[in-house]
Amino acid sequence: MLINCVAYQNGIKLTDISADDIPYHLSLPDNLVWVALRDPSPEEINDFGELFDLHPLAIEDAQHGHQRPKLEEFDDLLFLVMKTLEPDGNDGIHVGEVDLFVGRNFVLSIRNGTRKGFQNVRERCEHEPHLLAYGSGFVLYALMDTVVDRYLAVIHQLEDELEQIETRLFSKGSSTRSNITDLYELKRKLLTVSHAASPLHEAAARMYGGRVPRICHNMQEYFRDVDDHLARIIHAVESQRDMLTTALQVNLAMISLDDSSISKKLAAYAALFAVPTMIAGIYGMNFQHMPELNSIWGYPIALSTMLLLDVLIWRHFKKSGWL
Amino acid sequence: MLINCVAYQNGIKLTDISADDIPYHLSLPDNLVWVALRDPSPEEINDFGELFDLHPLAIEDAQHGHQRPKLEEFDDLLFLVMKTLEPDGNDGIHVGEVDLFVGRNFVLSIRNGTRKGFQNVRERCEHEPHLLAYGSGFVLYALMDTVVDRYLAVIHQLEDELEQIETRLFSKGSSTRSNITDLYELKRKLLTVSHAASPLHEAAARMYGGRVPRICHNMQEYFRDVDDHLARIIHAVESQRDMLTTALQVNLAMISLDDSSISKKLAAYAALFAVPTMIAGIYGMNFQHMPELNSIWGYPIALSTMLLLDVLIWRHFKKSGWL
Amino acid sequence: MLINCVAYQNGIKLTDISADDIPYHLSLPDNLVWVALRDPSPEEINDFGELFDLHPLAIEDAQHGHQRPKLEEFDDLLFLVMKTLEPDGNDGIHVGEVDLFVGRNFVLSIRNGTRKGFQNVRERCEHEPHLLAYGSGFVLYALMDTVVDRYLAVIHQLEDELEQIETRLFSKGSSTRSNITDLYELKRKLLTVSHAASPLHEAAARMYGGRVPRICHNMQEYFRDVDDHLARIIHAVESQRDMLTTALQVNLAMISLDDSSISKKLAAYAALFAVPTMIAGIYGMNFQHMPELNSIWGYPIALSTMLLLDVLIWRHFKKSGWL
Amino acid sequence: MLINCVAYQNGIKLTDISADDIPYHLSLPDNLVWVALRDPSPEEINDFGELFDLHPLAIEDAQHGHQRPKLEEFDDLLFLVMKTLEPDGNDGIHVGEVDLFVGRNFVLSIRNGTRKGFQNVRERCEHEPHLLAYGSGFVLYALMDTVVDRYLAVIHQLEDELEQIETRLFSKGSSTRSNITDLYELKRKLLTVSHAASPLHEAAARMYGGRVPRICHNMQEYFRDVDDHLARIIHAVESQRDMLTTALQVNLAMISLDDSSISKKLAAYAALFAVPTMIAGIYGMNFQHMPELNSIWGYPIALSTMLLLDVLIWRHFKKSGWL
Amino acid sequence: MLINCVAYQNGIKLTDISADDIPYHLSLPDNLVWVALRDPSPEEINDFGELFDLHPLAIEDAQHGHQRPKLEEFDDLLFLVMKTLEPDGNDGIHVGEVDLFVGRNFVLSIRNGTRKGFQNVRERCEHEPHLLAYGSGFVLYALMDTVVDRYLAVIHQLEDELEQIETRLFSKGSSTRSNITDLYELKRKLLTVSHAASPLHEAAARMYGGRVPRICHNMQEYFRDVDDHLARIIHAVESQRDMLTTALQVNLAMISLDDSSISKKLAAYAALFAVPTMIAGIYGMNFQHMPELNSIWGYPIALSTMLLLDVLIWRHFKKSGWL
Repeated sequence: MLINCVAYQNGIKLTDISADDIPYHLSLPDNLVWVALRDPSPEEINDFGELFDLHPLAIEDAQHGHQRPKLEEFDDLLFLVMKTLEPDGNDGIHVGEVDLFVGRNFVLSIRNGTRKGFQNVRERCEHEPHLLAYGSGFVLYALMDTVVDRYLAVIHQLEDELEQIETRLFSKGSSTRSNITDLYELKRKLLTVSHAASPLHEAAARMYGGRVPRICHNMQEYFRDVDDHLARIIHAVESQRDMLTTALQVNLAMISLDDSSISKKLAAYAALFAVPTMIAGIYGMNFQHMPELNSIWGYPIALSTMLLLDVLIWRHFKKSGWL
Repeated sequence: MLINCVAYQNGIKLTDISADDIPYHLSLPDNLVWVALRDPSPEEINDFGELFDLHPLAIEDAQHGHQRPKLEEFDDLLFLVMKTLEPDGNDGIHVGEVDLFVGRNFVLSIRNGTRKGFQNVRERCEHEPHLLAYGSGFVLYALMDTVVDRYLAVIHQLEDELEQIETRLFSKGSSTRSNITDLYELKRKLLTVSHAASPLHEAAARMYGGRVPRICHNMQEYFRDVDDHLARIIHAVESQRDMLTTALQVNLAMISLDDSSISKKLAAYAALFAVPTMIAGIYGMNFQHMPELNSIWGYPIALSTMLLLDVLIWRHFKKSGWL
Repeated sequence: MLINCVAYQNGIKLTDISADDIPYHLSLPDNLVWVALRDPSPEEINDFGELFDLHPLAIEDAQHGHQRPKLEEFDDLLFLVMKTLEPDGNDGIHVGEVDLFVGRNFVLSIRNGTRKGFQNVRERCEHEPHLLAYGSGFVLYALMDTVVDRYLAVIHQLEDELEQIETRLFSKGSSTRSNITDLYELKRKLLTVSHAASPLHEAAARMYGGRVPRICHNMQEYFRDVDDHLARIIHAVESQRDMLTTALQVNLAMISLDDSSISKKLAAYAALFAVPTMIAGIYGMNFQHMPELNSIWGYPIALSTMLLLDVLIWRHFKKSGWL
Repeated sequence: MLINCVAYQNGIKLTDISADDIPYHLSLPDNLVWVALRDPSPEEINDFGELFDLHPLAIEDAQHGHQRPKLEEFDDLLFLVMKTLEPDGNDGIHVGEVDLFVGRNFVLSIRNGTRKGFQNVRERCEHEPHLLAYGSGFVLYALMDTVVDRYLAVIHQLEDELEQIETRLFSKGSSTRSNITDLYELKRKLLTVSHAASPLHEAAARMYGGRVPRICHNMQEYFRDVDDHLARIIHAVESQRDMLTTALQVNLAMISLDDSSISKKLAAYAALFAVPTMIAGIYGMNFQHMPELNSIWGYPIALSTMLLLDVLIWRHFKKSGWL
Repeated sequence: MLINCVAYQNGIKLTDISADDIPYHLSLPDNLVWVALRDPSPEEINDFGELFDLHPLAIEDAQHGHQRPKLEEFDDLLFLVMKTLEPDGNDGIHVGEVDLFVGRNFVLSIRNGTRKGFQNVRERCEHEPHLLAYGSGFVLYALMDTVVDRYLAVIHQLEDELEQIETRLFSKGSSTRSNITDLYELKRKLLTVSHAASPLHEAAARMYGGRVPRICHNMQEYFRDVDDHLARIIHAVESQRDMLTTALQVNLAMISLDDSSISKKLAAYAALFAVPTMIAGIYGMNFQHMPELNSIWGYPIALSTMLLLDVLIWRHFKKSGWL
């Protein structure tokens, strides 16, 4: 679905144009055509591909979707695949894809399964014509920057989740099934972020320093900034994975500790019952000559002894922390 | 066994030829000879090796089979070893091998223990004569692309398996022996995929960018595409290995949790029996002066007390989650 | 908040100047202006940014804060972000940030959330005019050196903590919840140090050897020294992480050992009660013909047997270490 | 001990020669002298070292033995240290050492503690004079190839061992001490193979591609082949280590599972005894008014109830898998 | 403390000189001054630093001590920091430090906290004047070689320790607290060795091949040899760390196995007491009509039944390995 198709000149919006006018505007000097598609059909992609004279392999990739993030250069054309990450309602991460074809004087952005659009990027760009005058490279930067900034929101969500799990982990008596499940889910989500950010980090690193695609010239400080944000995200993910692995170990240790304390309680309570039972057993024996049995104080003394021993045992276990 | 032996000119099929005609067709300019062997005997390999003037070390490797995937250059000749992966019936992976000898004007493909053939690759190539006109490099690409695409099917199968194990893992009371066995088997299968894909990834990386074999010139975008698919596969394998390691830890934690809950149940039930037994023991004592024994209400009161205490104990354990 | 603003000439302090005099002093040859801000507002940063003609992206980073440590070059300008680490009262680490803008003839330092200032650095520099005469590069070195030295204090604190945990870990009967919590907390703190030191290490490595920013020329031995300290810190962190991982495993093993010894105690005590109870049970049977029952020695012998057996059992378990 | 000392010309054996004739034959053009020593004394090594004018450091290394595998170049001389691995009788690995000094026109091989000799290598070389004509480089290749091929036999032995352990691991009720011991032993053996193969892999990589020692010129395809075998071996070792680590985890999980099932059995059997004991206790009470005691059916009913309850309990535990 | 101060000419000892004569001897051509200090005060270091015109940063490092091993070049001067490792009495490692300043015609060695001196190095050097004639580079080599050889002794001690722990680990019934403590201690010692050897390995690698400090020219084979020894040490440490990690896992598994066997024993013995107790309970019931009670054989039969059942149970558990 075609969302936007606008021609710019020296950073200033000329007009909304139809797809048919694109070749005309591409032929003008200093013109920039910025086209945005949303969940397009393979045919649409094909049509625009022919319009902008894109490489068949890149078109194919855009049609299939589900690519790893990557930056490919075909002569003057850059083909950038990015994953978009958005928090969905239920603690999950919604993954979409943005494919960018960036030529000398055009940008074709295709978003697939992305909930939040990039209309605000276009608006911001149009408010800064002196920057937009840099051309397609600046649009590329602005879109990357936005996608990467949205990763940060996801990272913060995951950090909150880990913190909650940690709190539960160290609060007594809660080494439960749900902790384990949540840690496992968190691990999966970290992998998702990592799969979005790491290859993009590689791509961004090729956009400044060293040999740089021509479109990115003069914009290197900007791409270095994006790359820096990606480095931060990747470090955050790494840290969380690290803590998570430790949290899993900690959880196992906590379960073992709980198990120990159950064994202790079990042992302590068993003793509380075993002692009176044994004494009762002794006075249940049928020997004829058991003087205590005849004493009028026998029964109360026996009962008191039982009680007394149990109190002593109770205290002992209480003191040694078994109860 | 010789399956196919066809001569092409500028991408268009000329004719099926016999092995004896190969030298003649090789001598014609712009001709491409594409020979396909299946499970050949060492002698057959030797014959074709001499026909195409292949390096003795490469011939030896093809005869022995069971090579690691690799790309070797002998002057103008490329020797590529690939593993084929096919899902077999019982959740296993069937591993075969394809050895490709690719010269300037010929392709010799040898498949060993591969179930599914590459006839469809030949057909697709013959339907795209403009691409086949690129020569042996394109055939090399088409075969690699097909082999790698089949890896994806295996990856999807393994992802399904992991998902099933995960579901079982987190459903209560199923931390069974079979989970562990399945995780172990899955790990082995991931290793198998990794052993097929990783060295091929290294090989593919040498086919574009930097110093590239002459046969791969003009085809670099295509090989980059194959390489990209391999990168995706390797990342998928890595992710699964990562999750699998975590799943094993989770499984251990689940077993420990189950163990804890058994201990708790054991303790709770023991208490339910210990209390009445103790009381019964007390009234089984043979003291002469035990007033309760003479009371007509003694017995029912004792029984009721036992029952009452057990109900209280039951409730207590129920509330604290031990039962 | 502006803390200091001083002009130097050939390493000798000229005078404290106001912000308005900065452009004048910058225009003088051999002059160095060193400005220190503390927790400034975005507007202040912006004002000084314009005064020193800083790059907008760097200004933005300084305004936002919470950057990863990094070194960025904008033509002649260096932008260095460092994290400061200070032990806070409760075994925690207080993290602050110092942003340095270093030009040919000025240094602008901005500290955010740092408790301890850098006044002593300025004083030391002013006492060594022959070194300060090196210009802004020396100030950069002096500030980095101070920040890095403060990391060492934190490292020592963490080493002490680990040692205390280890002592507790190996002292009998203390495999407690607090050990696990402390190890987890320590791991987090090590990550904090690592996140401060590792990217700074990367930055420092770019300040000597190879291609070096012009400001760092003639100062390379000094920056190599800072880099060396950072290497030491990073190694110390790595070692501690390594030991910590092992400590967690050790802790788990200790818990399991404790668990075993509880099971043993439980078994031993159970036996001590089970034997007399069994004997008592036997003599509690109501058979008419049980000769022992009639003997006057029956009861004392039975009691003695119970006692004797218990003593033997006690000894046995004591010897085998179960009690 | 001198085993062999032969002079070759253009790949054809001239004659067995004595150590004294070596200098003469070295002086002839196109001559190759191949000397084989076995477990020589330091003095012998010294003598030959002087004969061939070897570097004192290399001689010293050969005398001391127990070197890491390595390739050292001293001008025209190559010094290669390899470990030999041979299966010994008791599932162990016998480690020996082969030191090769390879000059332009001589090869001096010293084997230490190697059981199987290299006579067959010499024979194979003598049967292929067209290859042996390559000179000392080919002998070097032939010896390396043989040593590396023998690693493969060891790898296959270890793979068999792992498979046996796995079979035992997953067969019920065999998580025994011996599994753990065998896995540990296997790990040690894998380390041994790794220590032999990895540094040799590094050495082999320097013998083709890039800057290559002069002796290896024209032989690069051959050394690449050896390197490829080493890569395969190293990958096999890596895979096994990986599976072994998982196997250890699996084993731990199996032990925990067994432990759980023991706890379950213990609990189930305890219940089977506790119920009748409790009932018997109740009817062992001495209340005067217990109507059941007087009934003629009291005893059989009590017994039947005990039996019935035990049957029910038995079934319950059987169904829930605790028995 | 000044230990030695000797002037050499072309490798031959001239005379012991006093500190005051150093400048004179340094001014002579072909002279080498070799000064050895032991645990010097900062002032001494300073004095000699001025004498030899050393860089202030290097002097400062030597004064502070506790540096990471490192090699620093200041123009013609090399500054090498090494750690010395010596077995101390109680299975520990004593760590000292040696700082070497090596100029074109002097060597200043400073040892701190090292027990064993380097007098034997000096003697060996004086016995080989043809090697000492190489100049300060050879002294550097000789000292490094000696320090590194002493690491080997420590490695052997640690290998012995690991072997002892392994033996204890696999001998039945000894999964004790001391095993864990010893493994933990061993890990710490391995880290100590690694911290001494790894940075030195990096330093040594810069002394041969590639761009080499001028002092090391002509000595490259020697430094490669030292580097090789360091590689061996590092590999040995890596292997031990690897085995140690596995040993910790194995230990945990052993503890779990022991725990299982305790549970089994507990269950078995519980059964041995539970059965007679149950039977005794039954015949302790007070039913009026229990025919067995009146039989004269009742008591002996009951006793025999108890005994018989216990024998059967005993055998059963014995056979199934629970006892």
